[in-house]
Amino acid sequence: MNSTERVPVVEKILDANDQVANLNRKRFDQAGVFAINVMASPGSGKTSLILQTIQKLAPEMVIGVVEGDTAPVTIDADKVIAAGMPAVQINTGGDCHLDAVMLSYGLDQLDLDQIDLLIVENVGNLICPAAFQLGTHASVLVASVPEGDDKPYKYPNIYRGLEVLLINKIDLLPYVRFNMDYFRQGVEMLNPGLITFPVSCYTGEGIEDWAQWVLQQVRSRKA
Amino acid sequence: MNSTERVPVVEKILDANDQVANLNRKRFDQAGVFAINVMASPGSGKTSLILQTIQKLAPEMVIGVVEGDTAPVTIDADKVIAAGMPAVQINTGGDCHLDAVMLSYGLDQLDLDQIDLLIVENVGNLICPAAFQLGTHASVLVASVPEGDDKPYKYPNIYRGLEVLLINKIDLLPYVRFNMDYFRQGVEMLNPGLITFPVSCYTGEGIEDWAQWVLQQVRSRKA
Repeated sequence: MNSTERVPVVEKILDANDQVANLNRKRFDQAGVFAINVMASPGSGKTSLILQTIQKLAPEMVIGVVEGDTAPVTIDADKVIAAGMPAVQINTGGDCHLDAVMLSYGLDQLDLDQIDLLIVENVGNLICPAAFQLGTHASVLVASVPEGDDKPYKYPNIYRGLEVLLINKIDLLPYVRFNMDYFRQGVEMLNPGLITFPVSCYTGEGIEDWAQWVLQQVRSRKA
Repeated sequence: MNSTERVPVVEKILDANDQVANLNRKRFDQAGVFAINVMASPGSGKTSLILQTIQKLAPEMVIGVVEGDTAPVTIDADKVIAAGMPAVQINTGGDCHLDAVMLSYGLDQLDLDQIDLLIVENVGNLICPAAFQLGTHASVLVASVPEGDDKPYKYPNIYRGLEVLLINKIDLLPYVRFNMDYFRQGVEMLNPGLITFPVSCYTGEGIEDWAQWVLQQVRSRKA
């Protein structure tokens, strides 16, 4: 008898974060909420995207927002509330990402049954947020033109785990060096066929296509 | 006799990182090297600043560069070497910052006695790099105009520890919403009197003033 046969082997042990992420996902699904995790560098336009999305979709649905910040400032959450939607701020206390446990505490502050779309704005960081599942249905990255066309090559991990990519600030294309082909080749190498929306949260260009994608996802959860 | 008198009390214990940072500092000082730690968000223009600095100061000195990257890509180090200066790349293996130990291994690959100025390009991240001393003489942040004017309010820790701030991409001021007064008020609150250079690595504006500051620091180590 082989000794390994007598040893119980437990595979695919979830770490604590992933266990809580699964619980978050169950809460979303039970409430019929479509939930997205919006990640980006600092200043790529996450909050502007959220505000544009609210403006487009407010007549159709209630959008809850969880704002992750490393400092106790409510600049972003205040903007969401001013736009008429429920928002919760999570102060990570200096931590460089949200994790599933932090998000679960944020969810406790929202009435998920009253929400159709939940947007989680992660901490501005291209590295650590990619390593922590939150339980959301889609990971969305807001890249931006002035950051440069080499970011997929330098921060590959975050691009690998995405369901959607937004390329923001396309209104600045005439004023900066940004080779769209080189950028998109880098993305294609890491995440072939990734759904991508070039947008400008400043001019509103491209927002309609993104909003239509979100609307479809939300409706498919309700059907 | 008070029992506390008999207990040896060791205060100000340095953690391992700070101990190695002190050793790095000694290596710089023994070799007469002025060393700076350049931090920023992804795509703020750290590498462009380094290349502009090399272009301005190359006739005066040898500039060594240590490039911190989360992925094994040598895009930035290749540019420095193409500019005629010695460069080493440190791949953090996904980590979101450089620490003093990583830098010490990078220094082993350079002949510090042949170098006047050492520039460490940290990983693009506004959070974690601020928590790790490297032993460099000055912490420098490259902020950039398209990132927005609220960054000091949202990422205060990194601003508190700076010796110098560069505000890059000022050529984009006409095309984005960026209130310079609001930005500078935030900085002043966190780090009063911080030496600040508004620059454009694209047009070259302001680079001369920054380069003169660097030149003074380098000369003062040699005197």
